[in-house]
Amino acid sequence: MTEFDLIRTYFSRLGAYRADVLVGIGDDCALLKVPKDARVAVSIDTLVAGVHFLPDCDPESIGHKALAVGLSDLAAMGAQPAWATLALTLPRMDADWLRAFAAGFSALARRHGVALVGGDTTRGPLTISVQVHGLITGGYGLRRCGAFPGNLIFVSGTLGDAGLALRRLQAGEAIPERVRQCLERPRPRVALGMALTGLATAAIDLSDGLAADLGHLLQASGVAADVHLGDLPLAPEVAQEVAATGDWSLPLSFGDDYELCFTLSPRRLSNLKTLAKKLDCPLRAIGRITHGAGLRCHKPEGTRWEVRQPGFDHFSDNSGEETT
Amino acid sequence: MTEFDLIRTYFSRLGAYRADVLVGIGDDCALLKVPKDARVAVSIDTLVAGVHFLPDCDPESIGHKALAVGLSDLAAMGAQPAWATLALTLPRMDADWLRAFAAGFSALARRHGVALVGGDTTRGPLTISVQVHGLITGGYGLRRCGAFPGNLIFVSGTLGDAGLALRRLQAGEAIPERVRQCLERPRPRVALGMALTGLATAAIDLSDGLAADLGHLLQASGVAADVHLGDLPLAPEVAQEVAATGDWSLPLSFGDDYELCFTLSPRRLSNLKTLAKKLDCPLRAIGRITHGAGLRCHKPEGTRWEVRQPGFDHFSDNSGEETT
Repeated sequence: MTEFDLIRTYFSRLGAYRADVLVGIGDDCALLKVPKDARVAVSIDTLVAGVHFLPDCDPESIGHKALAVGLSDLAAMGAQPAWATLALTLPRMDADWLRAFAAGFSALARRHGVALVGGDTTRGPLTISVQVHGLITGGYGLRRCGAFPGNLIFVSGTLGDAGLALRRLQAGEAIPERVRQCLERPRPRVALGMALTGLATAAIDLSDGLAADLGHLLQASGVAADVHLGDLPLAPEVAQEVAATGDWSLPLSFGDDYELCFTLSPRRLSNLKTLAKKLDCPLRAIGRITHGAGLRCHKPEGTRWEVRQPGFDHFSDNSGEETT
Repeated sequence: MTEFDLIRTYFSRLGAYRADVLVGIGDDCALLKVPKDARVAVSIDTLVAGVHFLPDCDPESIGHKALAVGLSDLAAMGAQPAWATLALTLPRMDADWLRAFAAGFSALARRHGVALVGGDTTRGPLTISVQVHGLITGGYGLRRCGAFPGNLIFVSGTLGDAGLALRRLQAGEAIPERVRQCLERPRPRVALGMALTGLATAAIDLSDGLAADLGHLLQASGVAADVHLGDLPLAPEVAQEVAATGDWSLPLSFGDDYELCFTLSPRRLSNLKTLAKKLDCPLRAIGRITHGAGLRCHKPEGTRWEVRQPGFDHFSDNSGEETT
């Protein structure tokens, strides 16, 4: 089977089922029709074996996650997912691996109405880049830069589950299936992001950890924040781990949560409650925006943890600085 | 310097200088404004160290080529280049490498009015994926599928120069600077592609070699072709190599030419001549479309070389079958 057969067999069926795909896979470019008044939101993400997923992770999960991380970016922007392209670098042609990868990618794509419109398959160390394209009608969607002093800070879902899964798997320990799914099959908050447009003042998705990502939001908005760690939404397994070790890095800096963090004027609180009920989406207030710069994390016992330089850094081993 | 500083320093200056970039690098997504009546052409390509460029290739050339291959796809579609995203996987943070890479990428981007609107930088084996976005106003641009029996087949520029450069460099031999530039700094035929829209019946860019890429065009159009190898446009160095070895693989299957191959009704020949003069672009008729399937290459000495299964295959070592 040649490279072309391979692409045709496993990926073209994820292809042009949207009417706005004028030319799908199989020409020099895909050709996409953008509705009048809509803007195109784009984001590209790369997953590298051993960095973003464990080498023995099942390929169906890798296919899911490769698309999920991009959809999470669209969610953070409040965009409606539309199209994706896939650049797949593989050490060798492995039909079983590809079939499973395509199945995982495909299932999530269909759930969100995403058509795969282009791709490139090359030989090399396992690396997956996915670009997602979403549509925003009118306005600029959800930005990082609109948080204002007095705004409440919210996060969706729970934090630290993926981090716990990774820590346990790397230690060779067993984990509950729910926790593994958080790491390997994150569910991007697409509906929430779209619903928050015009309601939240700023938003970001949590890929690098709350401390880093909220830090980006604060920096973009030119504000500071107080976050109360005791208010963080933690699943029982994560709460137990934090209590046992006194280490907050699971919910703060392990990353891979793919939840949304957003800010809200307190006057819009009742709108948010209605929305949370309608979407059946758990939301938790974790702190408040203030004047100034930086993120102050308040531990339940009263000590303070200040993140001066937020941002998960793929090229260094520390993701922030601690002060008490 | 963190990952974020790095991206800011070298890439954000390639950023949002186009008015249609509503949100550029630095949010969860870029937000792009598409003109009314325009369609968006997208293509993603990956370059892997050791596969698409030699490990000791200078980073400025790698930056140039990473964008050039995508622009060549836009050219083949007749699209006006607009935006690009860059997914860069690097083994380590190397400021000098990045500065040079960004310079090469940037110079070509500016020449074609392309804004870099998003990216992702991760740690891993050197792999570069670039997605390009172009605009096509009205119609479907240039497709692969419109070639018709009786059409003439044309190629731009010369073929086999990049192949010759690669062959000589791999053998540790010196090469003329012009030939090296063909391999390392290909010039995508953007103006030609746009000018051919509405004139050519079908087009493709030559990335995998004439035999493979023309094969795709024939397959998409449901036609066959006769190509006269004696008519191929060859630079003196390549013509000499072919004459000395009797081996036509340099212009036919080495690839990396990034010229356009297109088909034309003979009735439009005078329009094409006008266009070639206006663009100062060398174009050469190399054969003719016929009914049937397959590509028949006629050697000057009268023997025939038939490519049954066209397509450069990254996962096998032969790129076609020869019959006499």
